[in-house]
Amino acid sequence: MADTSTHVAGIGNAIVDVLVHADDLLLHRLGLSKGVMTLIDAAQAEAIYSQLPPGIECSGGSAANTIVGIAQLGGRAAYVGKVKDDQLGQVFRHDIKNAGVAFDTSAAVDGPSTARCFVLVTPDAQRTMLTFLGACVELGPDDIDPVVIAGAGVTYLEGYLYDPPLAKRAFLHAAGIAHAAGRSVSLSLSDPFCVERHRAAFLDLVSDHVDILFANEAELCSLYKTPSFDDAVRSARGHCRVAAITRGAKGSVVVSGEDVLVVDAEAVEAVVDTTGAGDLYAAGFLAGLAGGCDLVTCARLGGIAAAEIISHFGARPEHPLKDLARARLGSHLFENLR
Amino acid sequence: MADTSTHVAGIGNAIVDVLVHADDLLLHRLGLSKGVMTLIDAAQAEAIYSQLPPGIECSGGSAANTIVGIAQLGGRAAYVGKVKDDQLGQVFRHDIKNAGVAFDTSAAVDGPSTARCFVLVTPDAQRTMLTFLGACVELGPDDIDPVVIAGAGVTYLEGYLYDPPLAKRAFLHAAGIAHAAGRSVSLSLSDPFCVERHRAAFLDLVSDHVDILFANEAELCSLYKTPSFDDAVRSARGHCRVAAITRGAKGSVVVSGEDVLVVDAEAVEAVVDTTGAGDLYAAGFLAGLAGGCDLVTCARLGGIAAAEIISHFGARPEHPLKDLARARLGSHLFENLR
Repeated sequence: MADTSTHVAGIGNAIVDVLVHADDLLLHRLGLSKGVMTLIDAAQAEAIYSQLPPGIECSGGSAANTIVGIAQLGGRAAYVGKVKDDQLGQVFRHDIKNAGVAFDTSAAVDGPSTARCFVLVTPDAQRTMLTFLGACVELGPDDIDPVVIAGAGVTYLEGYLYDPPLAKRAFLHAAGIAHAAGRSVSLSLSDPFCVERHRAAFLDLVSDHVDILFANEAELCSLYKTPSFDDAVRSARGHCRVAAITRGAKGSVVVSGEDVLVVDAEAVEAVVDTTGAGDLYAAGFLAGLAGGCDLVTCARLGGIAAAEIISHFGARPEHPLKDLARARLGSHLFENLR
Repeated sequence: MADTSTHVAGIGNAIVDVLVHADDLLLHRLGLSKGVMTLIDAAQAEAIYSQLPPGIECSGGSAANTIVGIAQLGGRAAYVGKVKDDQLGQVFRHDIKNAGVAFDTSAAVDGPSTARCFVLVTPDAQRTMLTFLGACVELGPDDIDPVVIAGAGVTYLEGYLYDPPLAKRAFLHAAGIAHAAGRSVSLSLSDPFCVERHRAAFLDLVSDHVDILFANEAELCSLYKTPSFDDAVRSARGHCRVAAITRGAKGSVVVSGEDVLVVDAEAVEAVVDTTGAGDLYAAGFLAGLAGGCDLVTCARLGGIAAAEIISHFGARPEHPLKDLARARLGSHLFENLR
């Protein structure tokens, strides 16, 4: 992909995370299912926030986490997402730009505030998320810069974009531009309940538009409505060019044509918070592709980035991913990246 | 102090911290002296923020950190400080209230935004701070509720309050109310350059108003304009009822009447970020006093709370302080606290 100005352009819900420690009792009191993402409105956000312990604010958003990871691994990356021009929106913009990502989506001046996601991290390192989409509902086709998308080797889309209706249109618009320019389109299925909400649309999307699919086990099984992982893998084969499926501590499986590649997870000393594990797996995988790596190495890079993110609180890397990847895989990998 | 409704009321600059990892090169480029706090205006804040790497936002403020620590240790605590009614102000209010602290200071509706402090943490775990005081300049005598101050066993004041002129008046007003009610007044010297800026006023203050003084070595030496720690300790003796002086890895020294008590530091596995070390030492010490502990135990509690805070990023506790203190000192200590 040396001929592209950008390796990966990501489009997603631009969100600031509010990270809090929680116990099972709090989840129960709030009526939440552990491990999933629930959408909430402004009034619910206020009511729930008042019941949460003190937190830490940190830029988040699934695709944004991925794009920051790609930039950290040396990829040239761009992001499209909508914040409001408020304090949290300024924080989001600062963080993604100063991570080395091109980010030029205009901020909303009116309307709801910058999106927040309450991330409740339980002692078992599971995260349960409550998302107030806020300004994300304002992202639309007009926010897609055709030059950015047509110039990116891969356009990466998060499934969560199907929740705000206007963003879904932006998503399809971008996918069309990417393919017209002969580029690849990648989709993350985001969450099993997100798949549940948009299954038919996602199945069509994978058929028509997706070259590289990211999903975890539960999401893939939800997509193909089967409890059997093997059946789901069989369905994915041929449905898209590459499917990279994460399985937590069991590592990942990459399906490509007739090949099914099984790659072990990277060692982690202590799992602190699984927030962003899938996002960072995608970051490593796509950075590997941009660097011309084979699929097994891409999956290992994904595992290395995911291992970093789950070893601490929050979904943005704390340790230089490139150094970690160099230490485990050798520096020659990064010759093709900046 | 079983007769008081509140053990400790703290008054300080209400600040949201923006924590970033930094190296010496960045400090050099920004022209900063490592380890100190520099005041910046809104324009400087904007210019500097644009040069900082991605960060994490977390409620801070010196006295606020102390007060949260006291609440975590079981003390009944109240806080007085000024935020604006903006997103970061709402975050500050949420975090301190949901830490169990009474906080009823009205938010500013107009004027500058909620205060931010850029905390640049270098790999040696030192923190260098840049504070935009924002709405803190609006805190004035009218924000002091005489009932809260007169009802608190100790009124705890941070020296940083002398930077915004109106807050200084609030500070003196509160000290007057506390003493008129027969309560104790405690002061933290905050920072050697803060002492430099207000030395004459602080010397008078310690003579006239301060029962319990908190300082680190550099601050105490700055107060008494001596390079000799022993000379500074000699000057403090008799100047106030109790002086608790922190010395980093060398632990702390408590001066009380003719006694000079030397207390070792608590063991820390790895020092990650020294932000809040002094604040949490004061928290442990004051919680100990509220619980009727002797001064050596107060100093040990201070050391335990400080050890927790320097073992991670940020100045608010991540692990339940009461559990840590119980494990090291025994649970009988907390019988007098809730």
